Amino acid sequence: MTEMLGGPFFSVAGAGESHGPGITTIVFGCPPGLEISRDRVQTFLDRRRPGGNKHGTPRNEKDKVVFLSGLYQTDHEALLGPSTISVNVDGNTFETEAYERGFTTGEPIAALVLSTSKKSGDYTQFIGPSGQVRPGHTDLVKYHKSQGYVDIRGGGRSSYRATISDVVGGSIARQFLETTFQTVLISSINQVGELKSKGSLAEQCQALYDRFRRDDAPTIIPPDAIADLQQTIDNAEIPSVDPDFAEQAGELIKETRKEGDSLGASVEVVALNVPSLLGDPLYQSLKARLMGALGGLNAVQSCEIGSGKAVVSRRGSANNDPIRSSGYVGNTHGGLIGGMTTGMPLICEVGFKPTSTINKPQQSVSKNLTEIDFELEKGRHDPCVGVRAGVTLESRLAIELMNAALSQRSQSLADGLPSIFG
Amino acid sequence: MTEMLGGPFFSVAGAGESHGPGITTIVFGCPPGLEISRDRVQTFLDRRRPGGNKHGTPRNEKDKVVFLSGLYQTDHEALLGPSTISVNVDGNTFETEAYERGFTTGEPIAALVLSTSKKSGDYTQFIGPSGQVRPGHTDLVKYHKSQGYVDIRGGGRSSYRATISDVVGGSIARQFLETTFQTVLISSINQVGELKSKGSLAEQCQALYDRFRRDDAPTIIPPDAIADLQQTIDNAEIPSVDPDFAEQAGELIKETRKEGDSLGASVEVVALNVPSLLGDPLYQSLKARLMGALGGLNAVQSCEIGSGKAVVSRRGSANNDPIRSSGYVGNTHGGLIGGMTTGMPLICEVGFKPTSTINKPQQSVSKNLTEIDFELEKGRHDPCVGVRAGVTLESRLAIELMNAALSQRSQSLADGLPSIFG
Amino acid sequence: MTEMLGGPFFSVAGAGESHGPGITTIVFGCPPGLEISRDRVQTFLDRRRPGGNKHGTPRNEKDKVVFLSGLYQTDHEALLGPSTISVNVDGNTFETEAYERGFTTGEPIAALVLSTSKKSGDYTQFIGPSGQVRPGHTDLVKYHKSQGYVDIRGGGRSSYRATISDVVGGSIARQFLETTFQTVLISSINQVGELKSKGSLAEQCQALYDRFRRDDAPTIIPPDAIADLQQTIDNAEIPSVDPDFAEQAGELIKETRKEGDSLGASVEVVALNVPSLLGDPLYQSLKARLMGALGGLNAVQSCEIGSGKAVVSRRGSANNDPIRSSGYVGNTHGGLIGGMTTGMPLICEVGFKPTSTINKPQQSVSKNLTEIDFELEKGRHDPCVGVRAGVTLESRLAIELMNAALSQRSQSLADGLPSIFG
Amino acid sequence: MTEMLGGPFFSVAGAGESHGPGITTIVFGCPPGLEISRDRVQTFLDRRRPGGNKHGTPRNEKDKVVFLSGLYQTDHEALLGPSTISVNVDGNTFETEAYERGFTTGEPIAALVLSTSKKSGDYTQFIGPSGQVRPGHTDLVKYHKSQGYVDIRGGGRSSYRATISDVVGGSIARQFLETTFQTVLISSINQVGELKSKGSLAEQCQALYDRFRRDDAPTIIPPDAIADLQQTIDNAEIPSVDPDFAEQAGELIKETRKEGDSLGASVEVVALNVPSLLGDPLYQSLKARLMGALGGLNAVQSCEIGSGKAVVSRRGSANNDPIRSSGYVGNTHGGLIGGMTTGMPLICEVGFKPTSTINKPQQSVSKNLTEIDFELEKGRHDPCVGVRAGVTLESRLAIELMNAALSQRSQSLADGLPSIFG
Repeated sequence: MTEMLGGPFFSVAGAGESHGPGITTIVFGCPPGLEISRDRVQTFLDRRRPGGNKHGTPRNEKDKVVFLSGLYQTDHEALLGPSTISVNVDGNTFETEAYERGFTTGEPIAALVLSTSKKSGDYTQFIGPSGQVRPGHTDLVKYHKSQGYVDIRGGGRSSYRATISDVVGGSIARQFLETTFQTVLISSINQVGELKSKGSLAEQCQALYDRFRRDDAPTIIPPDAIADLQQTIDNAEIPSVDPDFAEQAGELIKETRKEGDSLGASVEVVALNVPSLLGDPLYQSLKARLMGALGGLNAVQSCEIGSGKAVVSRRGSANNDPIRSSGYVGNTHGGLIGGMTTGMPLICEVGFKPTSTINKPQQSVSKNLTEIDFELEKGRHDPCVGVRAGVTLESRLAIELMNAALSQRSQSLADGLPSIFG
Repeated sequence: MTEMLGGPFFSVAGAGESHGPGITTIVFGCPPGLEISRDRVQTFLDRRRPGGNKHGTPRNEKDKVVFLSGLYQTDHEALLGPSTISVNVDGNTFETEAYERGFTTGEPIAALVLSTSKKSGDYTQFIGPSGQVRPGHTDLVKYHKSQGYVDIRGGGRSSYRATISDVVGGSIARQFLETTFQTVLISSINQVGELKSKGSLAEQCQALYDRFRRDDAPTIIPPDAIADLQQTIDNAEIPSVDPDFAEQAGELIKETRKEGDSLGASVEVVALNVPSLLGDPLYQSLKARLMGALGGLNAVQSCEIGSGKAVVSRRGSANNDPIRSSGYVGNTHGGLIGGMTTGMPLICEVGFKPTSTINKPQQSVSKNLTEIDFELEKGRHDPCVGVRAGVTLESRLAIELMNAALSQRSQSLADGLPSIFG
Repeated sequence: MTEMLGGPFFSVAGAGESHGPGITTIVFGCPPGLEISRDRVQTFLDRRRPGGNKHGTPRNEKDKVVFLSGLYQTDHEALLGPSTISVNVDGNTFETEAYERGFTTGEPIAALVLSTSKKSGDYTQFIGPSGQVRPGHTDLVKYHKSQGYVDIRGGGRSSYRATISDVVGGSIARQFLETTFQTVLISSINQVGELKSKGSLAEQCQALYDRFRRDDAPTIIPPDAIADLQQTIDNAEIPSVDPDFAEQAGELIKETRKEGDSLGASVEVVALNVPSLLGDPLYQSLKARLMGALGGLNAVQSCEIGSGKAVVSRRGSANNDPIRSSGYVGNTHGGLIGGMTTGMPLICEVGFKPTSTINKPQQSVSKNLTEIDFELEKGRHDPCVGVRAGVTLESRLAIELMNAALSQRSQSLADGLPSIFG
Repeated sequence: MTEMLGGPFFSVAGAGESHGPGITTIVFGCPPGLEISRDRVQTFLDRRRPGGNKHGTPRNEKDKVVFLSGLYQTDHEALLGPSTISVNVDGNTFETEAYERGFTTGEPIAALVLSTSKKSGDYTQFIGPSGQVRPGHTDLVKYHKSQGYVDIRGGGRSSYRATISDVVGGSIARQFLETTFQTVLISSINQVGELKSKGSLAEQCQALYDRFRRDDAPTIIPPDAIADLQQTIDNAEIPSVDPDFAEQAGELIKETRKEGDSLGASVEVVALNVPSLLGDPLYQSLKARLMGALGGLNAVQSCEIGSGKAVVSRRGSANNDPIRSSGYVGNTHGGLIGGMTTGMPLICEVGFKPTSTINKPQQSVSKNLTEIDFELEKGRHDPCVGVRAGVTLESRLAIELMNAALSQRSQSLADGLPSIFG
């Protein structure tokens, strides 16, 4: 089945396995005229890549992206190079320059990230019907689903490496959102194992909203204020609004790695300066889509909007956000009512399971179901996958928001987009 | 934007507002040869309908369904009537028999449920730009999104009444799943406000699985054993595996209704006897789709798979389910790994917010943002929407499972569906 | 597989068989605020219905439509009734008013047309594995494809009766197009059997365009001028811009019906006052979509755009339309270049095969492939299906144009839609 | 809008412009276990590439493809290399091996063809608002649609170069079809300008079918017999079953090129050994999809199925194909009835306009609509685009057939695919 992120307006197709030649991405539906530069997209990929921080997997991929279509500008010097791409086939080499900076043309944008730090030898214990199955991984289901025709190296297509496409597509979407609406995406870890942060990103974003709240125009939090918040997060040991928690969590991750074990994590992701009224109602509501896009990410077991599961124990009189002419008072609804945006910060939280790859002995089977005592022979891994998940969550949120914005635009008979407040 | 439940293989289109003439449903992609009877579908609609239990809204709709296409059998006596449908237009009446029982032909199946217990007078306080906004409801977003062209009666299309289409489509999907795989859907409430059940549906289903677990064939829990579990739930004051909790929760709901307030709820929904290997990987994984389909339902703020958010505080060594030749030991993964089914019970849980409609005074605005003190004048409502949500959740789960089963079938070059265990 | 007309922005879902209870239609994606009245949609259905002209099938269906969702206005007197709908199920009758006139809300619009002039007894010779197969019909393929579970009455879902959904959806699309852009759809028959018209609709539309051509603004042909052209077509014996041809063709159809035989036909369909720049490029270009939507209609064997197949024998120097500041000179391109509209009249032509149903003896088989001499026992049919196909072709063209217009709107970062000329 | 060839089961996404760095393709939905080799796909690309025959454009691209994902086999020596791909970014080179031969895994298959024979200098006369517009080309519509942000080099994304993706996807589809059903695709030119072939591919295919017709099993034309027919076509001066016509047409093309003019062409494309019963009914019928896929190709103005437009002048008694137990007698229906395959040869024909690029002077405008006398300064082109269109048409037909086969499989409750004859 065809499968993409987002759509049908703005969508992202991806291809590529953990240890294959590379990750290919095609981005559809970006309107013409948006300026895209390779180095800005690279910035987001750098946040995602393994080896990019001290608590991730030691696999060191540079993840350099090249753009191959969908951009243009008349100044070819600025458009092309210095990056190049070449193939050698049947003894002949073909080389050409790639795109560095240009404007979108409305045509599909292709991007390629090669995978060059691969150690396939690590995975010999998993080959064939007598190959071993790693508990918690897709090894068993994918082997049987593909009737044996599965790429067993490093999780194949189910690897976190596939999220390169999310980030490439998300980088374009966030550029669109920021240019058009000043919308900004941000994320923070608020729990690692049993360790919880003090305060939350949701609270800090709500405080920002309240600080700049106005009733004569839609509330816009200034870029500087958001940049300050982002700086706090970037400065922490792991990305979090609470530096003390981040310090302790970093320590815990280090310890757990030594023990050969892994840790779950909970990550908040928020969109600020979201235009109101985005999102189609009901089956394709923005709520349904975000639950699917964020909750559907590898290793995620829970997804919450606004106050999330905490609303279950509340009464309606405490949970309903009162409304004033400057907007909602409080944000238990998390920026979505009826699956459409209210203009309040859009707040989501996902729970990641502890990384399935651990070094401790476990009960398992071979692919043909012979019972074995399993122990990982080799392999590099993240002890806490949540640590570098933020940029992927932001990307998926951006892709869905952009799609909703284009949908909303198509449905407005009058010029311009309607809004609620101000 | 086109929006349907499920798809692209099996999908359900719905139309109709709370106080409009009726709810229309078209079901696409059911393979030919499945026997469908009107009265069996009616059974599920009866579980959904308001007035169907003592803790729901007092609106009394009979919700009788008629089938208008997509069914056939050569015996027209059995196929047609006694139900009839007629329209009167321009002074002329046209009448015809509807379908009672037939086999699917592979063509779209249309069904209609009229709405005849409407009291539009209840909603005069909400009309026009100076109409009042009910906190927690879609009134404000839908008014502005539609640029004023909104059906304000009873929530319009955002009403829970729209879930009639979910249940019609789900009834056909569960008939398909049961006939083809013996798959059965079941649900249970495990929290109302701060009141929590002892034990859970997940635990009971896991116990059933373990009781019938085998390693020479896929484990199938016999229909009788499932029927016993369903009976326990049906006998409780509200649908729950814990009758004591159900009793107390029923009492709490009654009290809360008197206070003019409302309550949140958490509902588990489980599929038993699910074939392994269903679900496409990655962006359209069954996990992504279930998060969207269940988490996207009206009033839902959280969605969890398997152990859900509880996994965040665990270590990998405790969270990974060990694997034996008879299947997984334990089911923290909830029947989905890599977004594909493992053949273990498929376990989801959603958190509903307290019903937004309450009788207490609240701060609000009119649609043109004048601040008001809001108090509901009239109107009927559920104090705890979770109470009759079970059949809708089961339906959405069934629709996604059927879609995944058809997708899996299309991808198998060899005859028959592959499976993992046994 | 889910299947709809148009989409993904504006789309039309249909359900219902020739001799089933009725044809159900759900229309998705109409923006809010468009005024729709039942009687105007009825006008288009009246053009489509059998018994609506003297050269069609004698089956006499009134085809009265009722609207069940997606419309609203505060004045309920105007919104509701006098049309009503009722069902009788399990001995109880439920009745409600249907919608007469309202504004679209952006929600799905459901419409129902009951089928009440059915004579199922006509079709007994076709029942079961030994049932006879009508050459040229879908009997054999549908029987085997459905593995026997097929509605054999009158072609089942493959009947021309299914085009009721096309016309309902098309009526809404043309209302949108006319209101927003003054776009009008028109069609004319230019060949019946070997009989060809003098002149063509394409030529007359081009003449109209040239008459009102301007270079300071997009050319708009005034409604009156279009109405005059439509009147000429309506006055002819069969819908055609050439009354003499129409007269002769009418005679030929009458003769051919007496002989128990049938006739092919070629039909032009044109959109006037089409905004330029509609249509996505390449795989989903408006050309690709129109070829599919028009060429895919039952009984159609050829589809042409602009000068169509005649371009094959031309040189480029004769075929390229020169361009002036007032637009293209000539219109061999038929209003589409690169699959996008140029603002010139959009010109298509489809070739219908002679109706498969004839009264002459033919060689055939039973469904289990026993060879038989086939002769139709009973049954009503059109000797020339092209005669009432015009409104269906116009409808499909309108649906695609509306979809393209919404798509174009979503892709424009600036307010308003860009255009080429003027 | 997301746009792909085929889908939703098997689909092909493409990206890349005429003079951009390369053409990127991602193929979705190929079931696991199909063996794919780079060199076999290369064979089809070689048939498509410019410079590949003496009557095409003199642009000489080698069009070497590399595969980057979706293939696997345990023997890495056979899977990987000798082809390699490398990028140089920020002064660092990253290189890796590409896939040479493997089995599909069910995951998306990415392929890349670089463009290295580009002469952007050829296109300076087309830059900016005062850039000239080539009559018959997309220059004007794309400039305004993109609001100026268009890649003007060589037609940009609208170039025939985009059909590389069609051929990559088609090569995989035809491998699937041949392996699974012995289905083979073939094409032949039957008209160039006013010059028509004697006999047709349709007739020769029908003769082959009749030669091997049987009534105890579905008729399968042996590979050798098809290979002979293909050889005849390959040996001709231009691809055609009529070598004399091919000789004359080659001469005509040469002459016309010298005159600076161009020629239209008509091309037949046929699928042999097509399983019966493929294709969904109605809106997504195989007829609708083929009309869209073939008729929607660049430069095509007409699309016909079976006897095509010729049916208009026939009577039903002459047009209906009689049916015997060995199949249909005659094939005016072209292998499709009710939009589903009958098992007879599937026959389509498309009419291409003469190439828009000519060297003669023409009336035109600049993009800002100033009138000019246009003459092409430089540039290479095909005088008759039909000459190398065959492999693209075959590819699109294969993609749609594979999609229909997967759809059909998903709808069959019983194992195996049902069929009609034998």
